[in-house]
Amino acid sequence: MSLLIKNVLLDGRRCNILVRDERFVCLDAAESAEAEKVLDAGGAAILPAFYNTHTHAAMTLLRGYGDDNPLHVWLEEYVWPYEDKLTAADIRRGSELALKEMIATGTVFFSDMYFDIDETIAAVQESGIRAAIGITVMDYHPKALRDEKARKVREWRDTDRLQLTVAPHAIYTVGRETLISSARLARENGRKIHIHLSETAKEVQDCIAQTGMTPVRYLDSIGILGSDVIAAHCVHVDKEEWDILAGRGVTVSHCPCSNMKLGSGRFPYELAIASGVRVTLGTDGCSSNNNLDMREEMKIAALLAKVTGDTALLSAPQVLQWATRNGAEAFGYDAGVIAEGKLADAILVSMDGPKMQPCHNLISNWVYSADSSCIKHVICNGKILL
Amino acid sequence: MSLLIKNVLLDGRRCNILVRDERFVCLDAAESAEAEKVLDAGGAAILPAFYNTHTHAAMTLLRGYGDDNPLHVWLEEYVWPYEDKLTAADIRRGSELALKEMIATGTVFFSDMYFDIDETIAAVQESGIRAAIGITVMDYHPKALRDEKARKVREWRDTDRLQLTVAPHAIYTVGRETLISSARLARENGRKIHIHLSETAKEVQDCIAQTGMTPVRYLDSIGILGSDVIAAHCVHVDKEEWDILAGRGVTVSHCPCSNMKLGSGRFPYELAIASGVRVTLGTDGCSSNNNLDMREEMKIAALLAKVTGDTALLSAPQVLQWATRNGAEAFGYDAGVIAEGKLADAILVSMDGPKMQPCHNLISNWVYSADSSCIKHVICNGKILL
Repeated sequence: MSLLIKNVLLDGRRCNILVRDERFVCLDAAESAEAEKVLDAGGAAILPAFYNTHTHAAMTLLRGYGDDNPLHVWLEEYVWPYEDKLTAADIRRGSELALKEMIATGTVFFSDMYFDIDETIAAVQESGIRAAIGITVMDYHPKALRDEKARKVREWRDTDRLQLTVAPHAIYTVGRETLISSARLARENGRKIHIHLSETAKEVQDCIAQTGMTPVRYLDSIGILGSDVIAAHCVHVDKEEWDILAGRGVTVSHCPCSNMKLGSGRFPYELAIASGVRVTLGTDGCSSNNNLDMREEMKIAALLAKVTGDTALLSAPQVLQWATRNGAEAFGYDAGVIAEGKLADAILVSMDGPKMQPCHNLISNWVYSADSSCIKHVICNGKILL
Repeated sequence: MSLLIKNVLLDGRRCNILVRDERFVCLDAAESAEAEKVLDAGGAAILPAFYNTHTHAAMTLLRGYGDDNPLHVWLEEYVWPYEDKLTAADIRRGSELALKEMIATGTVFFSDMYFDIDETIAAVQESGIRAAIGITVMDYHPKALRDEKARKVREWRDTDRLQLTVAPHAIYTVGRETLISSARLARENGRKIHIHLSETAKEVQDCIAQTGMTPVRYLDSIGILGSDVIAAHCVHVDKEEWDILAGRGVTVSHCPCSNMKLGSGRFPYELAIASGVRVTLGTDGCSSNNNLDMREEMKIAALLAKVTGDTALLSAPQVLQWATRNGAEAFGYDAGVIAEGKLADAILVSMDGPKMQPCHNLISNWVYSADSSCIKHVICNGKILL
């Protein structure tokens, strides 16, 4: 299967881009190049599509449910009772709604952590986008369920669009032994490990009280941290811990909207960037955001970085890299940049609307000014999804 | 002129809304009601349109110009040299671009402060939206220009969509005598006063060094503060100053994106809300935002309020009121709510897209999840602009 994207703006010039099967094969093709399918971009800019590295897709069903309450009221009176009632069919519908929004907003990959994952997997397979679906591990799960999950981790075969991850939920829901056995199961089967980490000040205080260590040090002391770990949030992480995360090659999924909406705090951008750790972006679930829009997430990250006074901290190109290439690399996809040989994941952004004009700087416009109304097309794995 | 908006969602129920001339006359009209024009909303929700209380419309021309630099580099090497070259024709084009974006994103009013205001006024007159155009006063302006501006303030006649304001730029560009004479000129002619106030920590420190007082106390000591004052930013304002602002009836224009991008700091939501002061929302100019999208501004305000830990601070309905009704009231328009007898300013938001589904809470969806792609129509002063 081949696709010719005609009249597209790349690095400031008009060109024609040839895609064959799943990859960009030529960024400077002739207008007359042969292809089974031709897409006229009409002068739209091609940009890397988003990799959302931390979400709970089916929680789209809880969008706007119980907002603006104290945290414990929101959790105890809204989120948990609602989740208790969710059926497998609900998870399917919630995942489908999430996928519809992701595609409309330019996302071609998400890393998920939730329940009834077969439903989410089925929705992803139909959708055409990529995903890393986490098998959630919690200590309260009965042994039979844990055994079933372990069997799935061993038997599952990844495809070009779908991988399974092992997702021990967090240090406060998964004990030492289960953390260790989860990580072993993941590593024996070549799966990534997806975990919430140091999201709140309370998590850190409780961990110190129980283990004498902060969460990052605790996980490191039991051998969990490695280059196969994607740690979501990492809001309350000190300088030395950042060096530990960077040294172990951990990927951090920064979720600014969620950290703000849930009052978790400001991500320590200065420390994270100085440590050299790989940072990616995630929207978290819709109940704490309330959308899955990675463009908005980029802007909010870049602004939250600057609010304390350093207007040069976290530039537009850097946050775009967090939201695209860093996420692709973390999950092992040869994608995230528009380059020959790379997987053909991309969005086409119209330059016609007022939000993209004038164009002193395309990336600045995209990060700080645009919204999903600017997105004309979304391409994943060489196929046009929007 | 009459307009029937059919099949529209208002407060959770479907209805037909009749507009006559500039006002809503019936929120529960018959589907067969006579009207010169009929708009089928197709089940879209009707919500108040935005009042953007602080911007510099023509600066849309600087969108993305010199981003992510240290503040002084951005100002000295980018913004000021660029502004020096702007012609009246540029101001016209920049204003037109701004108006196009405002209408596309649901804004029907803006309070402006810039140069060559006749160009912006002409663009507003053509656009169909409302504006309060500030005549900028700075001490470096020659006397002839100041005299010309004063004459304009005296001779100008407001219309239903256009008013002139007097805009002494800030305490660091306008000295004591000019502040006093500007305020007198405004008050003798029934005009609002639009000023930047306590935007940065440096402004406060310099003011204390020069006057022995903080900016709010200084302005109060010379009689500037009153219910006709719209003060933009107010980031560095202490508890007692908030009580002064509230006591004098000052309106505050909060500009979260700008405060974050320029590293000015987090607006003290707790103090502002506790004081009872009227808070409104502004986008500031495009070079420090980089758009004029009030929906995004609402979300970022509501998140920035919560980041320090109080998840109930600045709810979605409250920030929507800041962005609509409070702005209308501050500038004397009988608008900002969808009610019989009120001026017919409104937007119609499609419920069909994924960002508005499910709908546990319409206002939450609008504030935290939507974007301009959800806006189907924009109505100002009874006329359909989009």
